[in-house]
Amino acid sequence: MEVIESVRRMQERAEALRAQGKTIALVPTMGYLHEAHLELMRIGRRHADTLIISIFVNPIQFGPTEDFERYPRDPEADLKKAESVGVDIVFMPGVEDMYPEGFQTTVSVRKLTKHLCGLSRPGHFDGVCTVVAKLFNITKPHIAVFGQKDYQQLAVISRMVMDLNMDIQIIGAPIIREPDGLAMSSRNAYLSEKERTSALSLKKSLDLAQEMFWQGERDAQKIRDEMVKLIQSYPDTEIDYVSICDPITLEEVSELGDGTLVALAVWIGRTRLIDNKVIEVQDTNS
Amino acid sequence: MEVIESVRRMQERAEALRAQGKTIALVPTMGYLHEAHLELMRIGRRHADTLIISIFVNPIQFGPTEDFERYPRDPEADLKKAESVGVDIVFMPGVEDMYPEGFQTTVSVRKLTKHLCGLSRPGHFDGVCTVVAKLFNITKPHIAVFGQKDYQQLAVISRMVMDLNMDIQIIGAPIIREPDGLAMSSRNAYLSEKERTSALSLKKSLDLAQEMFWQGERDAQKIRDEMVKLIQSYPDTEIDYVSICDPITLEEVSELGDGTLVALAVWIGRTRLIDNKVIEVQDTNS
Repeated sequence: MEVIESVRRMQERAEALRAQGKTIALVPTMGYLHEAHLELMRIGRRHADTLIISIFVNPIQFGPTEDFERYPRDPEADLKKAESVGVDIVFMPGVEDMYPEGFQTTVSVRKLTKHLCGLSRPGHFDGVCTVVAKLFNITKPHIAVFGQKDYQQLAVISRMVMDLNMDIQIIGAPIIREPDGLAMSSRNAYLSEKERTSALSLKKSLDLAQEMFWQGERDAQKIRDEMVKLIQSYPDTEIDYVSICDPITLEEVSELGDGTLVALAVWIGRTRLIDNKVIEVQDTNS
Repeated sequence: MEVIESVRRMQERAEALRAQGKTIALVPTMGYLHEAHLELMRIGRRHADTLIISIFVNPIQFGPTEDFERYPRDPEADLKKAESVGVDIVFMPGVEDMYPEGFQTTVSVRKLTKHLCGLSRPGHFDGVCTVVAKLFNITKPHIAVFGQKDYQQLAVISRMVMDLNMDIQIIGAPIIREPDGLAMSSRNAYLSEKERTSALSLKKSLDLAQEMFWQGERDAQKIRDEMVKLIQSYPDTEIDYVSICDPITLEEVSELGDGTLVALAVWIGRTRLIDNKVIEVQDTNS
């Protein structure tokens, strides 16, 4: 496994791979790798000759009051984990190499970012799109894999790729959860033992929404109200949003149907967690 | 010479050329080709195995009151001219293929667009950057050639390419002028005979600035005043801006030096023309 820190060297390496006719899969990460990241890498591994992952905590996607500084980092452990799933190249650039003095370009997706996390994290998705566009141009992938836990991120990046005619296939990978249901996230490392219990309220409220739908409830407001009640019954929770929305446009809907997205962000103490579920009709064969 | 209208087919063709190890040069145009465009193509021709030009009047770089509808078009003549300079592929996409329903992504360069034409044409450079990013992803060039008449456009695109790590060499080509000095532009077709004479005021005012510099004048305000006087002495002229600025940041300077940019935009009747000159020290050998 090769570790590359220089933007220029990574780009030359990617171009050389392409010139040899190799296909490239990219898994962009912010490091502090866990099982869900490794699953993205296994998917990438199956789809291309060369698997590149990037590890870069991207400052421009964090707001001024957010957790850029304290975001967890452990590059040594990350490299071991990457090697264990057959990563070929780990790209770990420095901030100055990615954003040299004079940097001033932004990639923005307009409508999709007006909902969900875009409302409470202004500028966040501009930062995400801009860094992903850069990573794509540096690592020149044929495919790139993103997790569905960040549902809106996946939607926004897919839109950017389509709109700017980037010749890259985007693969969305299912959410990976802890045995008790908590969606895996590097930010789970922030949680105290007590908070860890409260964090289960996200998944439980999503399960409640699915259950109510199966029971025949279609009214988004009624389902949202019950989800809010459930979350608030746990200590140290503060809801950022609970959205019941169209899975393509992310616009709020008043009635649920097959495929409706239920997405939420909840503060557990000082830690903001997100989760989501696409509502399914009941499998009549089971 | 091949003519391709489909975005998808153009992208597949470009990818196939790259897979064969061919280098690609792109000259993006809005058509109504004249000698200055052909010069860009000759430069592209010298730098790559395959020369692609695009002809696309890009709606999103025109403001609501601007001349998108009446912008001159002559695709048949364009194809003949392109063939005469050895173009391999002409890419002529339709507006619906470039901007399908739901399109919502923008590429913006922030600081450089706050000056010169960016002030009087809000959103113009967002439209330019966005379409150029798309054209780059569709035609996959190794090099792209742009004219220096659109000095700010060249600066903005170069900045975008650098900031987003696009692996493309940008070449700026010298301004091509009519025998009497008027910078070549498709918009010159709008000018009446009388306006054609007034249009010479742009180049004459730039020559005046250079002459005053050679005479020892360094005060930007004094030079600007004389340029304005000269332009206003011609009928049907209305100055949009006369800028004396840093050639890299495009910020106004109070004193001229070697390499200072003098750039201007002037309305001649209903036609807005631009021109510029980089101030040179006198060649002591001549």
